[in-house]
Amino acid sequence: MSYIKDYIAANESKMMEDLFSLIRIPSISALPEHHDDMLACAQRWSQLLLEAGADEAIVMPSKGNPMVFGQKIVDPNAKTVLVYAHYDVMPAEPLELWKSAPFEPEIRDGHIWARGADDDKGQAFIQVKAFEYLVKNELLKTNVKFIFEGEEEIGSPSLEAFCEEHKELLKADVILVSDTSMLGADLPSLTTGLRGLAYWEIEVTGPNRDLHSGHFGGAVANPVNVLCGMISKVIDADGRITIPGFYDDVEEVPQAEREMIAHIPFDEEKYKAAIGVKELSGEKGYSTLERNSCRPSFDVCGIWGGYTGEGSKTVLPSKAFAKVSCRLVPHQDHHKISELFANYIRATAPDTVQVKVTPMHGGQGYVCPISLPAYKAAEKGFEIAFGKKPLAVRRGGSIPIISTFEQVLGIKTVLMGFGLESDAIHSPNENFSLDIFRKGIEAVVEFYKEYGK
Amino acid sequence: MSYIKDYIAANESKMMEDLFSLIRIPSISALPEHHDDMLACAQRWSQLLLEAGADEAIVMPSKGNPMVFGQKIVDPNAKTVLVYAHYDVMPAEPLELWKSAPFEPEIRDGHIWARGADDDKGQAFIQVKAFEYLVKNELLKTNVKFIFEGEEEIGSPSLEAFCEEHKELLKADVILVSDTSMLGADLPSLTTGLRGLAYWEIEVTGPNRDLHSGHFGGAVANPVNVLCGMISKVIDADGRITIPGFYDDVEEVPQAEREMIAHIPFDEEKYKAAIGVKELSGEKGYSTLERNSCRPSFDVCGIWGGYTGEGSKTVLPSKAFAKVSCRLVPHQDHHKISELFANYIRATAPDTVQVKVTPMHGGQGYVCPISLPAYKAAEKGFEIAFGKKPLAVRRGGSIPIISTFEQVLGIKTVLMGFGLESDAIHSPNENFSLDIFRKGIEAVVEFYKEYGK
Repeated sequence: MSYIKDYIAANESKMMEDLFSLIRIPSISALPEHHDDMLACAQRWSQLLLEAGADEAIVMPSKGNPMVFGQKIVDPNAKTVLVYAHYDVMPAEPLELWKSAPFEPEIRDGHIWARGADDDKGQAFIQVKAFEYLVKNELLKTNVKFIFEGEEEIGSPSLEAFCEEHKELLKADVILVSDTSMLGADLPSLTTGLRGLAYWEIEVTGPNRDLHSGHFGGAVANPVNVLCGMISKVIDADGRITIPGFYDDVEEVPQAEREMIAHIPFDEEKYKAAIGVKELSGEKGYSTLERNSCRPSFDVCGIWGGYTGEGSKTVLPSKAFAKVSCRLVPHQDHHKISELFANYIRATAPDTVQVKVTPMHGGQGYVCPISLPAYKAAEKGFEIAFGKKPLAVRRGGSIPIISTFEQVLGIKTVLMGFGLESDAIHSPNENFSLDIFRKGIEAVVEFYKEYGK
Repeated sequence: MSYIKDYIAANESKMMEDLFSLIRIPSISALPEHHDDMLACAQRWSQLLLEAGADEAIVMPSKGNPMVFGQKIVDPNAKTVLVYAHYDVMPAEPLELWKSAPFEPEIRDGHIWARGADDDKGQAFIQVKAFEYLVKNELLKTNVKFIFEGEEEIGSPSLEAFCEEHKELLKADVILVSDTSMLGADLPSLTTGLRGLAYWEIEVTGPNRDLHSGHFGGAVANPVNVLCGMISKVIDADGRITIPGFYDDVEEVPQAEREMIAHIPFDEEKYKAAIGVKELSGEKGYSTLERNSCRPSFDVCGIWGGYTGEGSKTVLPSKAFAKVSCRLVPHQDHHKISELFANYIRATAPDTVQVKVTPMHGGQGYVCPISLPAYKAAEKGFEIAFGKKPLAVRRGGSIPIISTFEQVLGIKTVLMGFGLESDAIHSPNENFSLDIFRKGIEAVVEFYKEYGK
């Protein structure tokens, strides 16, 4: 039995009390009526950081909800870890589906049940309690900074400006984040890559008004037909994106990583059954897990035009619209892709219509090299806590703040997330396993021990 | 000066009074609150038919609004003409755009202004006044029957069953209809063909719920992308429809007719400017007027799927829908085409999605041979009244009742329509030129004289 396990056992009821005090504050960033709860939650965090052993912990203003900043400097020449987390949560609706009230946390069946139990109050608490153990036992060999924001669930609109303004304050060697999930309770994993995003709206205009399809059909280009034609050409028969230059900066997935991905336990039949499809689809030459994480993709997110009501109306529509997006992989610059795509669509548009392409938003992809010392330390931490070397997995989604940190602060992030699919984050009955909570603290403690060497 | 011109001049004020009495009844079939107006209008027509010289004129029940039937039998062995018209009109909204009240007809600048002035009270009145002249001057050599319905503007839902039930009553050698338009006031023309129609709704289902495009994009087929791909394959680079068997029954436009079409005065630049497009589009090897009247076409009438609100939402939608239609040419059977298309779409659907094709409705095309004696008589009538031989033109739209007559009653229709584009039927300020009204009566009188020979 390690000291950390003893420490947790001895302090767990106090830990739960403190975590529950955070959870009880409904810090829902999406709802303006919770404005005061945001400040209350930020203040509670700053108290808890001080109690955990921070030299200082303050609530700082931002353009939006306040930031919590705390730090402990053990040695100005030592390495510095910046812990990022968020204290805001998603709305709890639909309330009637919760077994216990979302903001009255309770422990049942070895789990904490509440909004924020995992995302991100529970996971952030792991970081703070590991820090506390190291401070109290004089084991901390690195400086630690904390930056907790209150707007992650609404897209972090104030974080980039805050980073720009406080570069010196946030200076660190690595950023540590517990806000992602593992493949399974028995399948510890570390997220090493995220995809970027580019998003556009396409507007195709044909005739200046809806026309009678009998009088004009066959003589005049139909903007919906044209839009369908342009969209259908973006992906070829091999599932590759046809935009010239699109793959120029795409790094081929290293063979070692492909082998690791191939070893991830993955039941394709179960995957298909869960989403209700008979066959999967995508780029030739890549496995499903590669396609949804390490390879770029192109999807129509929405399309509309012409008559969409009941029954049948014979019309040759004036306009057709689509919202389309590409998931990008690390090294693909979303600004560059955004332009390549817009130029391509404009170039393939026939003279029979007018086409407008509006870039909507974008984000860079992110990759954490598995050779990074902080990554290796995180790997060691997971191995000790979970008894298994964690798999390095890339995720297909995008967390724009991670690439923002890299661009603005120039710091790599290690994603030491302890969530599980079954934690139901953003859904009713969000929960967090106590067993994983304990292992999480141990993993973070071991991270610091290794990283501080 | 012919006798008919004198007759019109002598009786015009009474004619206008009678026509206005019809127009003042707001027989709007689309609006249930006008239920009583339908019967009132039918009764008024039956009175007017009797006054014009019919042996009998009665209001007959149908599944929907009543029918008006009238006839004059001059000789059981003589040829019989069945005149079809409709007494219902379109709603008049938006009322604020009318210069004079839609159901208070007035004469300004040589035109009658009112809802129904052309469509179809004015045009039907031409038929009745020509008949009256022939009866009163003992010039009628053919039997004449009249069938006026009150549901044309809502798709004639009761007419087919009525025809089935009253085949003997409606027996005739030819049907005469004044409910179409001419190329221009100085460009008299007769409509000799109409296109058929087939209409489907396509539903493509991918995953059983909307998916996160980051977590699944690239691994799972997107139903909108798939739908766009299927739609884009229906027309090839030459503008031809790729459905196997689609052109099997398409009759090539006879060379003589193509030459006639080539002589129709048509300013392509003006046409493009009017609808606001830079270039036209369609099947290779055919002129614009051929493409929109004698050749089949394929149009998406509506499309929808995924997120269509403000801003950007990254989603891989569960479903995508389209309403699509083909305009068909005479000899293409819409039932056959409907099946060919549905089979084709189902066959081209990849295994990654489920596709449902629902036929919505259809109608056969129609062609009136220009060698038909009744057509030649109509041509002669126009030539005498307008001083020019009328052009034979096919129209791209569909009038399903015309093919219903051919199928159920086995009778060809001659479309002796006197409307103009500028008559604004179905729009505010509908009007009908008095000059054309007079010439129309003369043309119909001359038709009977020629046809009765």
